[in-house]
Amino acid sequence: MFQKLAYPVLPHLPVVFLSSPLSNSWQIFGSVLGVSAGFVVGKEGPMVHTGACIASLLGQGGSRKYHLTWTWLRYFKNDRDRRDLITCGAAAGVAAAFRAPVGGVLFALEEAASWWRSALLWRTFFTTAIVAIVLRAFIEYCSTGDCGLFGKGGLIMYDVSSATVSYSAADVLAVLLLGVIGGIFGSLYNYLVDKVLRAYSIINERGAAFKLLLVITISLLTSFCSFGLPWVAKCSACPTNLTVECPTTDGNFKSFQCPSGYYNDLASLFLNTNDDAIRNLFSTSTEKEFHISTLFVFFAAVYCLGIITYGIAIPSGLFIPVILAGACYGRLVGRLFASVTKLDMGLFALLGAASFLGGTMRMTVSLCVILLELTNDLLLLPLVMLVLLVSKTVADSFNKGVYDLIVKLKGFPFMEAYAEPYMRNLVAGDVVSGPLVSFSGVEKVEMIVHALRTTGHNGFPVIDEPPFSDAPELCGLVLRSHLLVLLKGKYFSRDRVLAGDEIFQRFTAFDFAKAGSGKGLKFEDLDINEEEMEMYVDLHPIINSSPYTVVETMSLAKAAILFRQLGLRHMCAVPKAQGRPPIVGILTRHDFMPEHVLGLYPHLKPYK
Amino acid sequence: MFQKLAYPVLPHLPVVFLSSPLSNSWQIFGSVLGVSAGFVVGKEGPMVHTGACIASLLGQGGSRKYHLTWTWLRYFKNDRDRRDLITCGAAAGVAAAFRAPVGGVLFALEEAASWWRSALLWRTFFTTAIVAIVLRAFIEYCSTGDCGLFGKGGLIMYDVSSATVSYSAADVLAVLLLGVIGGIFGSLYNYLVDKVLRAYSIINERGAAFKLLLVITISLLTSFCSFGLPWVAKCSACPTNLTVECPTTDGNFKSFQCPSGYYNDLASLFLNTNDDAIRNLFSTSTEKEFHISTLFVFFAAVYCLGIITYGIAIPSGLFIPVILAGACYGRLVGRLFASVTKLDMGLFALLGAASFLGGTMRMTVSLCVILLELTNDLLLLPLVMLVLLVSKTVADSFNKGVYDLIVKLKGFPFMEAYAEPYMRNLVAGDVVSGPLVSFSGVEKVEMIVHALRTTGHNGFPVIDEPPFSDAPELCGLVLRSHLLVLLKGKYFSRDRVLAGDEIFQRFTAFDFAKAGSGKGLKFEDLDINEEEMEMYVDLHPIINSSPYTVVETMSLAKAAILFRQLGLRHMCAVPKAQGRPPIVGILTRHDFMPEHVLGLYPHLKPYK
Repeated sequence: MFQKLAYPVLPHLPVVFLSSPLSNSWQIFGSVLGVSAGFVVGKEGPMVHTGACIASLLGQGGSRKYHLTWTWLRYFKNDRDRRDLITCGAAAGVAAAFRAPVGGVLFALEEAASWWRSALLWRTFFTTAIVAIVLRAFIEYCSTGDCGLFGKGGLIMYDVSSATVSYSAADVLAVLLLGVIGGIFGSLYNYLVDKVLRAYSIINERGAAFKLLLVITISLLTSFCSFGLPWVAKCSACPTNLTVECPTTDGNFKSFQCPSGYYNDLASLFLNTNDDAIRNLFSTSTEKEFHISTLFVFFAAVYCLGIITYGIAIPSGLFIPVILAGACYGRLVGRLFASVTKLDMGLFALLGAASFLGGTMRMTVSLCVILLELTNDLLLLPLVMLVLLVSKTVADSFNKGVYDLIVKLKGFPFMEAYAEPYMRNLVAGDVVSGPLVSFSGVEKVEMIVHALRTTGHNGFPVIDEPPFSDAPELCGLVLRSHLLVLLKGKYFSRDRVLAGDEIFQRFTAFDFAKAGSGKGLKFEDLDINEEEMEMYVDLHPIINSSPYTVVETMSLAKAAILFRQLGLRHMCAVPKAQGRPPIVGILTRHDFMPEHVLGLYPHLKPYK
Repeated sequence: MFQKLAYPVLPHLPVVFLSSPLSNSWQIFGSVLGVSAGFVVGKEGPMVHTGACIASLLGQGGSRKYHLTWTWLRYFKNDRDRRDLITCGAAAGVAAAFRAPVGGVLFALEEAASWWRSALLWRTFFTTAIVAIVLRAFIEYCSTGDCGLFGKGGLIMYDVSSATVSYSAADVLAVLLLGVIGGIFGSLYNYLVDKVLRAYSIINERGAAFKLLLVITISLLTSFCSFGLPWVAKCSACPTNLTVECPTTDGNFKSFQCPSGYYNDLASLFLNTNDDAIRNLFSTSTEKEFHISTLFVFFAAVYCLGIITYGIAIPSGLFIPVILAGACYGRLVGRLFASVTKLDMGLFALLGAASFLGGTMRMTVSLCVILLELTNDLLLLPLVMLVLLVSKTVADSFNKGVYDLIVKLKGFPFMEAYAEPYMRNLVAGDVVSGPLVSFSGVEKVEMIVHALRTTGHNGFPVIDEPPFSDAPELCGLVLRSHLLVLLKGKYFSRDRVLAGDEIFQRFTAFDFAKAGSGKGLKFEDLDINEEEMEMYVDLHPIINSSPYTVVETMSLAKAAILFRQLGLRHMCAVPKAQGRPPIVGILTRHDFMPEHVLGLYPHLKPYK
């Protein structure tokens, strides 16, 4: 038994044996990702997307169409490395968008990755370190202003470190209240974003013209707010101790309709970039720069605009609108509590932003680090942690985080890391669905072609029967993509016999490597004639002979945890009693989804 | 089939059903841990230990001996929650030792926890947030000096934020070199610590007197270095632009043997607390404060003392000695490179500390955040990340991280998260060891007592036989601790029959809750007479009817990953062919350890 190779022979080679040279390749790869992300600094939504796209492109071997290929990229042609690469890409995106390398790593691990492993940690860290170094070099290079707005604001985007941080018990109470209300506003934001996205998806489905119309409407509305609302604000006298110009047309104290010596504070927020507006709100020692009414109007406008803008056909993120609304909210609360607390208005704005972020995103450590890297506010860390705790806890009692809501809305088949409680009352065999299509160890070509044509299954169990075994027994699992490669190679025989070692000369491990999305062999690519249909093909060389199996009477909850923790795509349910066929069914992700399970057993209650 | 409860009935209740009230309990718990850690601020080794000990004590239901119990603690009496609690304790320890709450979370996740889950992240974050808040309150309260040295240095222990950070390509090259050499020194440190610990374990085993003698020897040696070596240093003239006293006996510029107006720089490092020495080395804009020869002597002494001190019978950590040696090394390199680089000496010291930490601990993100929180050096982050990358990569090519070495040295049965490559050539059945002891579904008391007495097994498979099933089939797994509770309850019957529902009135779920270490029922606690020995007991109510199983022909590598990823203690190997007994053996952690596997198959090569 010992000599028998427990691992499948050919197709699993790419994953198993080629991983060792990768440990070096990875480092080169992290650098590529890091450098590409370092070039662009913008909003986090598009940045994460861009980072992940570049990573995915590299992971599928480059683009043949645009002659951007490299044979060495084939080492990444497997699920695990491609997944890791995309995680690294997302981390690079966050790191570049917020100039927050450590925050990027944690964001990728807390929100993007389904599995945490120390190797992944090291790889994302490597990637974002390169991002940080490249970014730092570019900012240095561009400090003369040669690159337009690139690098404006330096490595720390909203520096508040100049503020003196000391607080009393009254301040802490004010901050707690800020956290509670921030959490409520955050969960309301999620609720409304969800509703609005559902409405938009109906509009967007009706065609490009409707999409465009939606974008134009929102743009007009935003412009109306930006240019119309400042008219309602009163003019304020310029502070006397300023080092910057006031009033001005392109700086921070906008003159708008005001006479000389006066500025319009609402225009100063609206007619600026979001970044500058946030910087204004975070600015310290400027207690009276904004009226309470101004803050209120700006908050209401930004909160609503943020909700209706997300989901229209333009690249936009969630972080910056939420930070903007939160900062405004925080400053507003600070102004209202001015009589009981001495905390700086800029710090209140920062804590308000933290409470909104905690209330919408529901992340903890990564938000904490991103805020730290955005604002350089180490001394404020205890209060930021407190606010995040409170707002997340409050918001969690209403609904789920915004990313979870979007995943559900888009219908992505995301499997939670835990089993639903009602699964404890079911066994694995209860959810096996559909007729089982299985092959014999040496199978007739016609049978395989028929199965591939008539089903959409991606994995087929293979059962060894006499004379290849004493009794029918489960031999393993073959994948559709590997079957297609095998059939394309036409290594057939006229008789029902094993293939022998020659097959190893016909195929190499890379023939079975995972192809880029939409690039693999398709069923239509097969060209098998009548005569070949009657021949036999030995499936043993491409069988995964160690599929994960569960007994059909195993608790569904435990089977789900096994499936999810090991990141499986197919799991074999085997019979408990002897004397039955050696396999009961194949479990896929679909079989564990609440929709499917509750569809079969409607009297079970989903977990609230 | 659907009505059949897939989960075991009684004993698994504590884990399964009692977890929901925990989500609130956890928060209260995090606070308790946080507050207790907040009281003490010291070195990380003892702090992590203390935090974990308090957590463990709480997790096992308090201490009955000292009347520190609380019935509500019983909710934590299960493996998963106790493990999480200890992770939180360790995080609280690091957070308090370095006043680095986010670093504490990441340390616990990167180095202490075997499984990462988002719930664990949230719990550790909660704990360290409370640590941060309590710590901040105490530091504020103690700022008047009422609490001795507590809170000295404020929330940021070694603040370097005052330094101007701008660097050129030459600086980066110097830093790269610093990282490479730092990595080599770091791995050498690990190598020597390993050798020294092996020597010490032989000495320590010989008795308390030898232990004491070792401590005295090391103390004398340290004292000799501290008071003897400064005599070799020359006196330096006090700088003229000082705001502090110089020379002095208790400040930073020690007079030692020097005349008025002069100070001994080596004494300033040796005759200070480690914290103050590190602060001196990190101090910015003090380029010439320490001679090159001074730095060299201090580095050599601290490096060697650090190695020989770890492992003697006093509470000591690894971080502070490594930071001290690294800072000294960094400053030394900075002085040597003074002609080519303009980077501040204090920042060089910080990067030197980072390179040593990276070279010994081999962590990335957590070290980065801990250093950030220790020094408030956000602008230096790109360079710190670069140094950590380089030193970790260099050191990894020599040996493993210091914690891994210690785990191996102590012989803890730690299972790596990956399968060793040679496991791919074996199947699960190859490593099953020992004779299998199994029970029948309704078993004679005598058989169980005999098995408990003669074996040390913690889990026994239960096989249902006719008349309870058509053919012998694997019914599940019972645990030793649950068997003891069942036997102690003496719910026996004269005939071989099922127990019925009455048993649920006899036992409650909490009877089967996991007891504190050394506190559970022991075999000696059983008191079963001759007559009872001949009776039968129904094991079904305490059977885990969904044990994880693998087919005996499954690849050992895949079985190991399943075992490790799901955190199992027992895994059943079942036969592939039909018509054989329904279980081949039980796999435990021991069966997957390289020592065991390579012992059975010595011709296999371990992974280098």
